[in-house]
Amino acid sequence: MNEIKVGLIGLGTVGTGVARILLEQSEKIYNRLGARIALKKVADIDVKRKRDVRLPKGVLIQDAQELLNDPEIGIVVELIGGTTTAKKYILRALKNGKHVVTANKALLSTCGEEIFNEAIKRSIEIGFEASVGGGIPLLKSIKEGLAANRFSDIYAIINGTSNYILTRMGEEKRSFSDVLSEAQAKGYAEADPTLDVGGIDSAHKLSILLLLSFGVILKPSDIPTDGIKTILPLDMEFAKDFGYKIKPLAIARQRKDGRVEAKVHPTMIPAGTMLASVDGVYNAVHLIGDAVGSMIFIGRGAGMMPTASAVVSDLVDIAKRIMYGGAGRTTPYSFIKKAVKKADLVSINEQECRYYLRFFVVDRPGVLARIASCLGRFGVSIESVIQKWRNTRGGVPIVIVTHKALERSLMKALKAIDSLDVVLSKSAFIRIEDGVV
Amino acid sequence: MNEIKVGLIGLGTVGTGVARILLEQSEKIYNRLGARIALKKVADIDVKRKRDVRLPKGVLIQDAQELLNDPEIGIVVELIGGTTTAKKYILRALKNGKHVVTANKALLSTCGEEIFNEAIKRSIEIGFEASVGGGIPLLKSIKEGLAANRFSDIYAIINGTSNYILTRMGEEKRSFSDVLSEAQAKGYAEADPTLDVGGIDSAHKLSILLLLSFGVILKPSDIPTDGIKTILPLDMEFAKDFGYKIKPLAIARQRKDGRVEAKVHPTMIPAGTMLASVDGVYNAVHLIGDAVGSMIFIGRGAGMMPTASAVVSDLVDIAKRIMYGGAGRTTPYSFIKKAVKKADLVSINEQECRYYLRFFVVDRPGVLARIASCLGRFGVSIESVIQKWRNTRGGVPIVIVTHKALERSLMKALKAIDSLDVVLSKSAFIRIEDGVV
Repeated sequence: MNEIKVGLIGLGTVGTGVARILLEQSEKIYNRLGARIALKKVADIDVKRKRDVRLPKGVLIQDAQELLNDPEIGIVVELIGGTTTAKKYILRALKNGKHVVTANKALLSTCGEEIFNEAIKRSIEIGFEASVGGGIPLLKSIKEGLAANRFSDIYAIINGTSNYILTRMGEEKRSFSDVLSEAQAKGYAEADPTLDVGGIDSAHKLSILLLLSFGVILKPSDIPTDGIKTILPLDMEFAKDFGYKIKPLAIARQRKDGRVEAKVHPTMIPAGTMLASVDGVYNAVHLIGDAVGSMIFIGRGAGMMPTASAVVSDLVDIAKRIMYGGAGRTTPYSFIKKAVKKADLVSINEQECRYYLRFFVVDRPGVLARIASCLGRFGVSIESVIQKWRNTRGGVPIVIVTHKALERSLMKALKAIDSLDVVLSKSAFIRIEDGVV
Repeated sequence: MNEIKVGLIGLGTVGTGVARILLEQSEKIYNRLGARIALKKVADIDVKRKRDVRLPKGVLIQDAQELLNDPEIGIVVELIGGTTTAKKYILRALKNGKHVVTANKALLSTCGEEIFNEAIKRSIEIGFEASVGGGIPLLKSIKEGLAANRFSDIYAIINGTSNYILTRMGEEKRSFSDVLSEAQAKGYAEADPTLDVGGIDSAHKLSILLLLSFGVILKPSDIPTDGIKTILPLDMEFAKDFGYKIKPLAIARQRKDGRVEAKVHPTMIPAGTMLASVDGVYNAVHLIGDAVGSMIFIGRGAGMMPTASAVVSDLVDIAKRIMYGGAGRTTPYSFIKKAVKKADLVSINEQECRYYLRFFVVDRPGVLARIASCLGRFGVSIESVIQKWRNTRGGVPIVIVTHKALERSLMKALKAIDSLDVVLSKSAFIRIEDGVV
């Protein structure tokens, strides 16, 4: 067998990139693989729109069913996104005995069990490298290149939009909404940015990372998730004063007893670390493995060609196993089937870290003492305080960095502080993470 | 077949790490792979020394031949290093039909063709992930995870000893020899540090990277290589003034016409880049691929467990292909056989970059004019000059950053400058690289 026929559903941005690579790099792939990967059919509901790729005549069709039922097609690539039609198509492809490649993190993180089980049952492959970290060969590295490791920590910048917005806010002292509008105009943020800036997209991706690295199943909706829109430019400046940068992190830890911490939130990390140097739209995933120690993967987490690069690497991998053996019999199914369990999640209330706290208060003696007293009452001790400016509208900002405290205690203290008459608006906190390199 | 027997030659630091992982993680590997990887024999000339691993009785033997001739052993791990005995053992293993895993960059970069050809002829695997970047799954990512890419640029910090020494010199304003002695005392540098600080180890690794990423063969001895020992603490300070950091880089570029640039030397890179944030013993490889864009892999490039992690990932990969098919029929042999050619190397004299130049001169009016005139005569134009201190022993330092210039022109200019009576010692230059992220 020296031609493997592929059907692609969804000729949007990433689909166009995949088609381009398959058409333009056909010879190179053949030389590396010893087989051709031929794009037999591309299905898209819009067959009229002009795209950045020239498909051979007859390849573009409107009806995905035609492609799903084509007995010659061995691998189906799903790139329409969403969790309804995409799910239907993927399950149909599996039932028809076709291997599947997808970038659909929302679908895999919410309906992964059903889809993976269907694939396992039929000894079929699902490639999903493109679902986390765009072009970064991250999932493959976790499954294969770092197979000797037990992972203990993940610190991941896996939403480029959020990282871009926080970077601009910090560099240009601009507000969240101001930078967001610009990012939308430039196409770096969606018209509805909630999934990205709300941290939900990161939670989807963290759920997939947890499955592969810790071998645990955790629904994205069970991951405590805070977005970045409460961050103010002055938080950026205070962070700098304390020697930190604010990054949108997805964090997970596997404790020695097997219990798992997982959360998504803007995080202060030391400014001199390698992870803090990852700015703009770049993604970065910092893993700690018991053998390899700290490793960081950095690259573009989105965009036409980086994501297409990951999709094509899955195609090449699956094609290789179709040709030489092992398709559907190795990772990730055997792994998932034999070693995966439900995550035993540690409640965020039971987790500890240091905190940055920001209050707007009336400019009057004794206010700091009252705040400090509330913190003390709940066992939250203060490491340092900055009270820098005097005449900010909406009150004077007081900023505090705490020693390690239990989240539950902090929440009680903040509730008490928010009820003080000298506190003018809801207090804000940012978690501090010193474990990154 | 659900047990694959391994023979390990060389129970030094890395060998001990490999033995530990195979013994301690046996169950986890079985769950992931569906087969056991059993350490059947370990050969080392010294069977008496105490090591950090408890081997089952009868496993440790003195004679490697016994292991090489054991028909039950399917994979041989070579970890003795060097290019004579190691080569003999590897060729013997291949002739006996055994797959091979090695971390031996010196051997593969100098005798790779002979060894790979032997493996191709017999359809046998050679895993060498551990040969570049220690625990970083770099070679696998280049071959598989980034298979859709044509690579144009490599900027790699692949010698941890050199990076450690330059980092300490920069942070503590200490001399090369001072930091080297300390590194030797701590075990971060060898008693004979020439391979590391002379850049030769980096050239070996760059040669392997070139084979996999550009598909070209280039002997390490053909790669222009400068070590780091000419760097002075004052170069570090001037670099900082200009907004740069000095990093030990292995650099390669593939031009559009297929010609290749390759070199190893201390390099000034912009201080704000992600690559510049990689300090201490960390390795980092920055690749640019046409689809994926810029990607950086960061991790520990040496040490017992990181290197062992890479060796074991090769073992798991090969075991998987032995079990499910494809062993010896896929990467990297088919790739090498079909797509590799000798590198068409661009002479370093024909390459262009910006330069940092440092002169020690007598403190007398008109000296800078004479130096500038020499540079101008050979077409090297000046971007900025710093003449900071007045009373340094051995003359006054003058430091110049040039615009882009041809290396050949610069060499001529420096020769002319060195013959000026006002110049007190041989002038020094550091190449500047602005293409990193």
